[in-house]
Amino acid sequence: MIQAGIIGASGYTGQELYRILSAHPEVAIKVITSRTYAGQPLGSVYGNLYRTGSSNGSSNGQAKGGAAVFSNVSIQEAAGECDVLFLALPHGLASHQVTPELLKKTYIIDLGADYRLKSRDIYETWYKTEHGSPELLPEAVYGLCEWFRQEIKHAKIVANPGCYTTCSILTLAPLVQAGVIDPASIIIDAKSGVSGAGRAAKTGSLYAESSESVKAYSVASHRHTPEIEEQLSILSGTDVTISFTPHLIPMNRGILITAYASPKPGVTGQDIADAYQTAYKDEYFIRLLPDGVFPETRWVKGSNFCDIGFLLDTRTNRLIMGGAIDNLVKGASGQAVQNMNIMFGLKEQTGIDSLPIFPA
Amino acid sequence: MIQAGIIGASGYTGQELYRILSAHPEVAIKVITSRTYAGQPLGSVYGNLYRTGSSNGSSNGQAKGGAAVFSNVSIQEAAGECDVLFLALPHGLASHQVTPELLKKTYIIDLGADYRLKSRDIYETWYKTEHGSPELLPEAVYGLCEWFRQEIKHAKIVANPGCYTTCSILTLAPLVQAGVIDPASIIIDAKSGVSGAGRAAKTGSLYAESSESVKAYSVASHRHTPEIEEQLSILSGTDVTISFTPHLIPMNRGILITAYASPKPGVTGQDIADAYQTAYKDEYFIRLLPDGVFPETRWVKGSNFCDIGFLLDTRTNRLIMGGAIDNLVKGASGQAVQNMNIMFGLKEQTGIDSLPIFPA
Amino acid sequence: MIQAGIIGASGYTGQELYRILSAHPEVAIKVITSRTYAGQPLGSVYGNLYRTGSSNGSSNGQAKGGAAVFSNVSIQEAAGECDVLFLALPHGLASHQVTPELLKKTYIIDLGADYRLKSRDIYETWYKTEHGSPELLPEAVYGLCEWFRQEIKHAKIVANPGCYTTCSILTLAPLVQAGVIDPASIIIDAKSGVSGAGRAAKTGSLYAESSESVKAYSVASHRHTPEIEEQLSILSGTDVTISFTPHLIPMNRGILITAYASPKPGVTGQDIADAYQTAYKDEYFIRLLPDGVFPETRWVKGSNFCDIGFLLDTRTNRLIMGGAIDNLVKGASGQAVQNMNIMFGLKEQTGIDSLPIFPA
Amino acid sequence: MIQAGIIGASGYTGQELYRILSAHPEVAIKVITSRTYAGQPLGSVYGNLYRTGSSNGSSNGQAKGGAAVFSNVSIQEAAGECDVLFLALPHGLASHQVTPELLKKTYIIDLGADYRLKSRDIYETWYKTEHGSPELLPEAVYGLCEWFRQEIKHAKIVANPGCYTTCSILTLAPLVQAGVIDPASIIIDAKSGVSGAGRAAKTGSLYAESSESVKAYSVASHRHTPEIEEQLSILSGTDVTISFTPHLIPMNRGILITAYASPKPGVTGQDIADAYQTAYKDEYFIRLLPDGVFPETRWVKGSNFCDIGFLLDTRTNRLIMGGAIDNLVKGASGQAVQNMNIMFGLKEQTGIDSLPIFPA
Repeated sequence: MIQAGIIGASGYTGQELYRILSAHPEVAIKVITSRTYAGQPLGSVYGNLYRTGSSNGSSNGQAKGGAAVFSNVSIQEAAGECDVLFLALPHGLASHQVTPELLKKTYIIDLGADYRLKSRDIYETWYKTEHGSPELLPEAVYGLCEWFRQEIKHAKIVANPGCYTTCSILTLAPLVQAGVIDPASIIIDAKSGVSGAGRAAKTGSLYAESSESVKAYSVASHRHTPEIEEQLSILSGTDVTISFTPHLIPMNRGILITAYASPKPGVTGQDIADAYQTAYKDEYFIRLLPDGVFPETRWVKGSNFCDIGFLLDTRTNRLIMGGAIDNLVKGASGQAVQNMNIMFGLKEQTGIDSLPIFPA
Repeated sequence: MIQAGIIGASGYTGQELYRILSAHPEVAIKVITSRTYAGQPLGSVYGNLYRTGSSNGSSNGQAKGGAAVFSNVSIQEAAGECDVLFLALPHGLASHQVTPELLKKTYIIDLGADYRLKSRDIYETWYKTEHGSPELLPEAVYGLCEWFRQEIKHAKIVANPGCYTTCSILTLAPLVQAGVIDPASIIIDAKSGVSGAGRAAKTGSLYAESSESVKAYSVASHRHTPEIEEQLSILSGTDVTISFTPHLIPMNRGILITAYASPKPGVTGQDIADAYQTAYKDEYFIRLLPDGVFPETRWVKGSNFCDIGFLLDTRTNRLIMGGAIDNLVKGASGQAVQNMNIMFGLKEQTGIDSLPIFPA
Repeated sequence: MIQAGIIGASGYTGQELYRILSAHPEVAIKVITSRTYAGQPLGSVYGNLYRTGSSNGSSNGQAKGGAAVFSNVSIQEAAGECDVLFLALPHGLASHQVTPELLKKTYIIDLGADYRLKSRDIYETWYKTEHGSPELLPEAVYGLCEWFRQEIKHAKIVANPGCYTTCSILTLAPLVQAGVIDPASIIIDAKSGVSGAGRAAKTGSLYAESSESVKAYSVASHRHTPEIEEQLSILSGTDVTISFTPHLIPMNRGILITAYASPKPGVTGQDIADAYQTAYKDEYFIRLLPDGVFPETRWVKGSNFCDIGFLLDTRTNRLIMGGAIDNLVKGASGQAVQNMNIMFGLKEQTGIDSLPIFPA
Repeated sequence: MIQAGIIGASGYTGQELYRILSAHPEVAIKVITSRTYAGQPLGSVYGNLYRTGSSNGSSNGQAKGGAAVFSNVSIQEAAGECDVLFLALPHGLASHQVTPELLKKTYIIDLGADYRLKSRDIYETWYKTEHGSPELLPEAVYGLCEWFRQEIKHAKIVANPGCYTTCSILTLAPLVQAGVIDPASIIIDAKSGVSGAGRAAKTGSLYAESSESVKAYSVASHRHTPEIEEQLSILSGTDVTISFTPHLIPMNRGILITAYASPKPGVTGQDIADAYQTAYKDEYFIRLLPDGVFPETRWVKGSNFCDIGFLLDTRTNRLIMGGAIDNLVKGASGQAVQNMNIMFGLKEQTGIDSLPIFPA
């Protein structure tokens, strides 16, 4: 059994990790930390986890390793007890706590942004904070499983990609790599559910403020932009600059991206389909939709799938692509477990192969 | 492996059964029928099930037994191939198809209403249709697992309880049985998500008609009323008549009941708590909430749990009880699988022990 | 033109008052105060009010009296400029600011709780704060327009009823007054949209926490309980104690109450209908629904209507009543304007006669 | 008083027209037709309109002209009684009923698509039906009020623009006309609430199918595309071809468009702002948002406003524009009344100047 720890477990991604890991056949959850809720049972903070892991009198055996109460052990202590630590911390914290010494004791899967960008400068420009361990950046592997599986296998520290970025790169990478679209023409119009804003009590995330409405936000300034650009640049071998516009959708989970690009001269719909097939035909978690069908977030809810569809509009000579994921699963905790599975040599879909739940 | 069939699989409960059974370690789905969609792959009707069970080229192995396409085999044919059939049909159909001969070939778990009421007369009065096999009513076992486990073990045909009834009876039964409340005083104010209305394209179920609103419906005339009354009468040994008022809530899943009753003279809050403990202390799927905490449907979503809380208001000398379930899981498909587990001697939570998913 | 001021205008009821008053043909909004947002234009806090009242360059003339910016004038100063002040303050504040001297300068319509209860003791018990001006309690008129119209006409200070209480009392008062139900048997199961919780950034009001769920809260302890009891006691001439259970519904606006009571012996459905007709046949804002039809919150959204329906269930000998209002209109700001209309001798529906908006 | 008729009043736009017109100070609603609901009171089909227009015993005087019941008079008969007819029919019907003779008797404002496109061929290609009165196309005026006010003043028949088109053209027209963007680069990513799909009972519009999800639909094939192209072509003097992708958003009302275009060389943000100011500085219903602020549908809900914002992203040299309207008001019934006001020489905002309602 892999002994796992969740550091900063009281956010939406942290508790989702707990839900997934508690059903994982090869994992025992050893440590769950929360500074805010230290000492409290999980179930008093998240009612869905009520009674989980208690051993006195209850027959509810989901929890493993006695991990029923939020603890406040340090990341260093946790590293001593665990084979792998999932960090679910606000950006800027992880880079000040992870050290080469820590990496000798445990594997790290960081769900935050600190190790996603190769360039310290770009990180500090977009995140407006100092990076605490730039010396680890070359070592950190970008944990987009379908594209960096080999590197992940041998990584000590994996940077789990952002939610928007996972969906965007998975949708665009095959085409950028195959050279069938003009990278300079890429526009990504993204839509996210409200859980993406986290559990912080902000006015804009209130039901009365975010239901029954739709808006763009962080126009031309969202922090996932450089992450998408960096990866697409690596894959295409050229500097890719994109337009990225996120929107807030009145739903709990889900990310949909609608992407636009100009096909290279002579490229046909079949070429696009072939590029996707080449990249993903053996990928369990990528579902290429039938011709002309576009993804919907409801069809991936609760699962680790990424659904992809496209249409080459000959009238306008523009390619329209759609990608959909569950932001808390493939966009965060599910992909983190997928990374763990790869790092520990398990079958990749272990513990994350559940079908989407509908209607939900 | 248990060979299972789902008859009438294109409704919400049918596809939810598919989702649950496809992850069940002891089940192979052998047959999935739909008159409307015969010949079509599941994924073209329910995008969440896209690519499920396909074997050509995909590595997606969720489906078992090649059950990827809706078939139109008859219930009789299906019985020949399957150890158990789940019937997810509109009321009035099952009773005309199930026969003593059929029960020699296969086990039946009927998710419809046809075998829930012991009295043919009461059935025909409330459902306004003729019962097709009243001779089977004595043999059919009411599949409320926590209360009829012993009978279910030996049943050939189980009537899976209704969603409102499951939640209502689980909340009230311990108190009625313990004689701590006056059965004549029971009022159940129930709230259900829109999935309870099924997938039929009715104006009242449209987003624009059911979102952003709440209403009572079928006041004093809902068909789950006699089912609740019959079971509470059996448990209390007296004729129980209740007021039952369902409400439509703008959410997909979930049933909440708020029940009111007068405690018998001298009954204390501790007596109530004791009655619940006595009934449920060893029940995996019943979560008795801490003192004064009331259930919320979000905390059980996607799971087979039933959460129960109560408060004895000494100011008014009235007991207020709350119960919450996921109507498609414990209120339908999850409990159906729980019944199957009992009938086939499996550990009761096999395949239905997943934690609730949140936020969703 | 009536010069009006809104004190504490940055909450949902405050801005709703602004919306209603700005279209009122007899009112000029003179003062709008907010401690938090003093100096800021309304439109920067509530985008729906963007550009309202600006006079430089815009042709948008909705605002009157130049009231486009939140000010921080004191209630005393505002009283000097205004004929009427609407107080939309957290409970406990108004009673410390309203004085007999103030009432010589202006009329007061208090949307908070401070003057709703006749008994200082009951107020201080339920609200856990000291009342600042108990000497004004005898003078304050309870502003439930349909029941206290004559008193409101001559009042200097009106206590605008709570949202739950408006809906509850309007539904129950005719029957209690007519003596056709047993007051000791009253149970009110109430459902409210999330706007009732206000604009404060609380975790429980987040979209991800309140959507797709339903729960009871403040069971047997909600502060609107004594207000309902006091008014029903006055109307029935006996001490009425009720059970009141509020629920949170995933919708923005609307309150629905489902009330239960035992009819007095011999009372018929026609007696109930007659009691309602007697009370409300000439009331513009009360819509008595056809026989057997129950109200839905969507049908009153954005309007000052209260819809009422009922059913006498002879099977259980129980009366089930339904009432629905828009909590921000008839449950707060609309009724406040209705009170103003009465106090100033205007036609009662002036400025609040718009039809409900649907779908919305 | 203008005598008005609504032909086909049982859809969402028809009943919204009723709501708006019933509060219009210069209009009497003379006729309301519905083939399906002929003979039934409005309130039995739309509960928000309950009791409207009844004269027996009720003091509710919203209705005018006795228009409380759906009638089945023909459009010809209605023309004899009314000064103006609003047609709210499925596309393809109006063009077969409107004749030159009819236009001698009454003014026509058609909310459908039949007279929006100048080219019969393009109409028949995109709508796949024969046009019944192509001879009237030259005479029909495109009723986008802010751009064709002079023509509307003298029109006998006005084609009320589509919802997506109104929002798209209002956002793009000033820039296309000013020549500050490259028309060939325009991409419109549009988002609409579910009421846009109408009241037909379709599976895809069910709460359980459209809530908690987002999807693109009619990709590269939506019928509003040629309408946008035609108008932008007229304004720019060149053939404009655009990419248009509509999305379904889980909300009742509202359209948001996010549009992308390349600025012409040398164009600055100030140039963009100037183009908007030039076009709209005196427009009551266009609200140009402050620098960098993007529109949100909640801020226009229930109103006839169109909010517009933009950002020139110098990093990518791309212009991002946002526009928001209420699809049932400025996108349909509100603009129809605005057209009527212009045609009849009334002040343009008469009866449609209400502020947006929030939260709703």
